[in-house]
Amino acid sequence: MSVDERREQLIAVALELFSRRPPEEVSIDDIAAAAGASRPLVYHYFPGKQALYEASLRRAGRELSARFEEPMEGPLSERLFRVMGRYLDFVQSHGPGFAALLRGGSVAASPGTSAVIDEVRRAAHDQILAHLAVPAPSPGLRLTVRAWIANAEITSLEWLAERSVPLEELQLHLVQEFVASLALTAAREPALATELAAFLADERPEGPSGRLVQDLAGLLAVPGILDALTALAAPTVGPAESSAPGSAPAPTTSGPVDEPSAQATEGSADASPA
Amino acid sequence: MSVDERREQLIAVALELFSRRPPEEVSIDDIAAAAGASRPLVYHYFPGKQALYEASLRRAGRELSARFEEPMEGPLSERLFRVMGRYLDFVQSHGPGFAALLRGGSVAASPGTSAVIDEVRRAAHDQILAHLAVPAPSPGLRLTVRAWIANAEITSLEWLAERSVPLEELQLHLVQEFVASLALTAAREPALATELAAFLADERPEGPSGRLVQDLAGLLAVPGILDALTALAAPTVGPAESSAPGSAPAPTTSGPVDEPSAQATEGSADASPA
Repeated sequence: MSVDERREQLIAVALELFSRRPPEEVSIDDIAAAAGASRPLVYHYFPGKQALYEASLRRAGRELSARFEEPMEGPLSERLFRVMGRYLDFVQSHGPGFAALLRGGSVAASPGTSAVIDEVRRAAHDQILAHLAVPAPSPGLRLTVRAWIANAEITSLEWLAERSVPLEELQLHLVQEFVASLALTAAREPALATELAAFLADERPEGPSGRLVQDLAGLLAVPGILDALTALAAPTVGPAESSAPGSAPAPTTSGPVDEPSAQATEGSADASPA
Repeated sequence: MSVDERREQLIAVALELFSRRPPEEVSIDDIAAAAGASRPLVYHYFPGKQALYEASLRRAGRELSARFEEPMEGPLSERLFRVMGRYLDFVQSHGPGFAALLRGGSVAASPGTSAVIDEVRRAAHDQILAHLAVPAPSPGLRLTVRAWIANAEITSLEWLAERSVPLEELQLHLVQEFVASLALTAAREPALATELAAFLADERPEGPSGRLVQDLAGLLAVPGILDALTALAAPTVGPAESSAPGSAPAPTTSGPVDEPSAQATEGSADASPA
């Protein structure tokens, strides 16, 4: 093996081991044995376990980011569904060892590992915004995208630990949660609502968005739900039960519908530490 | 000062410093100076910086968990709104120093810090389930709650770094995202739909849920959206454009409405790594 080949082989072997077990349970001896190399040889290429761990993580990060690439074709939710299939496949094969690092509890955390994680998150964020193709993404939309990425990360790591629902279900739900978050963001940002209309027009009944709309329509048939929503949709401006309306600044969301903010104001006023 | 008082004072001073700067920028000398104590005195109480850091984090975790306590009274979304006010206040005062730890990139991460973080997340999860008062929370509901907690965590840390929207807006949005996640979970879990109806019946038009419903109703008035949703809600079983229907297991979600799963199946089949 050439110097480069040997180096790459050691990283590949280390990545395989670090993917299955937390770093504190993987030794340089384990890596040397799995690579069919001597301990001094491993040290010849890497100053220590942390350097090898970070090199493995960098490779894992590149592999994961490559899975976010998706042709700009077809309904958006179906593109995201395919990406999530590849992402969850990656989580299954590499998640067990890196979960603690991602959840903030790994002894191997360092500025180096932090940079890799941030880069993968940024790649996911940039891919999603590229597919959304919104001309000037608002801070609110960017925050929505980042929050959904965190949701996907945590949900998949939790899933890995418990496997409490089938993987295909998780894949569908994550995509549907993205669609719902997008709709929520559009509900408070009129400029995004037009983009949402165009996005929905391209979706198909059989795809994740269609199935979501059908599930939500089914929910309206459950006794009590439609009545409750109707009551909530038509605000009554009666004598307020609440105290001190107007004593705190009202939230500044501006949806297409105006609503009285007495209660929200009361909520803010109550929000001091108990 | 008694031994206990001195110990508590050192933790309080350390927490104050560790809340504002990452641990690598806080030295034992800084802590000693801020506490009006000598360096040897600090070492008399704590073997080193990491021990003091972990003690500070434990105290921060207890303070944060205490903020999750909320009387079991009034509409659920308004309770959560008050809790989020206290939570975001905590994030503002302690977030800058602990953000890296939570995001997985701190050199001070250890099994000890991991245990504290897990405990706070569990406290948040348990409080939310206690307020929801669902008799037997499903794995899907638990996952929804955990994912929303992760969302709140990441969104608030991102907000701290960029402050791109007003804090009151973030507080409202996080609560509304919880309501939306709950509705989504209920849409695929019929047993939860009845609970959702009861929950919505207690909400008020002026509260976070009411405002959400009004914003979403406003969205339906945007040209194109209602048409697109109507088309998605009524699945047409025409000749499939897609390849190989039935070649992969269909997702097993069961909403109150049955839907053809041809496209979802095609999505699964395409979900192999590119």
